[in-house]
Amino acid sequence: MTIKIYGFSASSNSLVVFHVLKELGLPYEVIQPAGLEEIKSSDYLATKHPFGKVPVLNDDGFQIYECRAIARYLINKYQGTKTSTILIPSDVHKAALVEQFISVDTSYYNPPISKLTVQLVYFKRIGNEVDLKIVNEAREELEKVLDVYEKLLEGKDYLTGEFTLADLLHIPYTYYAINVAGEVDLLNKRPNVSRWWKNISERECWKNVVTEYSVK
Amino acid sequence: MTIKIYGFSASSNSLVVFHVLKELGLPYEVIQPAGLEEIKSSDYLATKHPFGKVPVLNDDGFQIYECRAIARYLINKYQGTKTSTILIPSDVHKAALVEQFISVDTSYYNPPISKLTVQLVYFKRIGNEVDLKIVNEAREELEKVLDVYEKLLEGKDYLTGEFTLADLLHIPYTYYAINVAGEVDLLNKRPNVSRWWKNISERECWKNVVTEYSVK
Repeated sequence: MTIKIYGFSASSNSLVVFHVLKELGLPYEVIQPAGLEEIKSSDYLATKHPFGKVPVLNDDGFQIYECRAIARYLINKYQGTKTSTILIPSDVHKAALVEQFISVDTSYYNPPISKLTVQLVYFKRIGNEVDLKIVNEAREELEKVLDVYEKLLEGKDYLTGEFTLADLLHIPYTYYAINVAGEVDLLNKRPNVSRWWKNISERECWKNVVTEYSVK
Repeated sequence: MTIKIYGFSASSNSLVVFHVLKELGLPYEVIQPAGLEEIKSSDYLATKHPFGKVPVLNDDGFQIYECRAIARYLINKYQGTKTSTILIPSDVHKAALVEQFISVDTSYYNPPISKLTVQLVYFKRIGNEVDLKIVNEAREELEKVLDVYEKLLEGKDYLTGEFTLADLLHIPYTYYAINVAGEVDLLNKRPNVSRWWKNISERECWKNVVTEYSVK
């Protein structure tokens, strides 16, 4: 009856799911596929994720894939049952603002920061040559996005005012960029972004994810 | 008290919102910004959309931006009040499958088909040179995604079995690719994808969108 997650501890999308599970206070078991060969195998494609990705959730026989879908399912089903943390509020207007900032992450923040960290963290780790043109273009794009975030976060501790799934989705890639790749200049001259990053990265549940999965 | 949408009739994301409004049976008013200059103006950035995009919704003073967030808000607030169409089911497992396929669209389907249609429809219209390398790469990527869709749609009329927001989100870009750019070969040898496309593109509400906004 345990919740099972097929995922890699070095996958940002898997870390999002582990973090959501901890915020909701849910016990779970992680099954790490043997590697890229396994998640691209015909068996995995047919029974786990047709596009050959992680994470995949199996909750007592009910199975779905895609990080954001898994997060929403866990919230819909379990939010409020084990902890008081509210990641998507029930109020229709508050929920709409959470959705707005989830989409802002997907549309504007995630594309440049994922490009940047793939180059500076993942490629470095596996010994691939880092493409400085991609790094510089991604950093430049991200700087512009962060200038908008600086305004959006004026007078606020979190994107919608309170910590929600919208903030949580930003954490893994930003952690890789700031804490692993050392891109701390992204925070300089942006006091609102800096305060927000401190608030979200110091969540106990996230710190537990970092320790448990040796995120580095 | 009317719902107001700031949007362009040639914007795929605006068409999604118009289609959702029609499926839910909601009256609305469209306010077309004067052009790119207006949505990049400091006033628009400060009061409508901080990233200078459409659509933006204003529902009796409550304002949000980003197409998917607007769609979810309208569904959360109004689904079932004017029509019986269910775009996101209340059942937690059925809803999770809808979320899974919304994420499949965002992660795998939307990137290549948006690249393809920007080149073949938008660039042609405004007289920009079409980059055949981008066209061919996008088409090749989309073909692979459609091969997976062909399996996912085996024995099904819609992605989750029933018409939902997940199907709806695919319509505008696919319409541009198939019906405007003439990329009908994408459907050839894929009977399941062809059946699905027929089912979703022949929705009365979508046909009304095409007529009303002269989608071509």
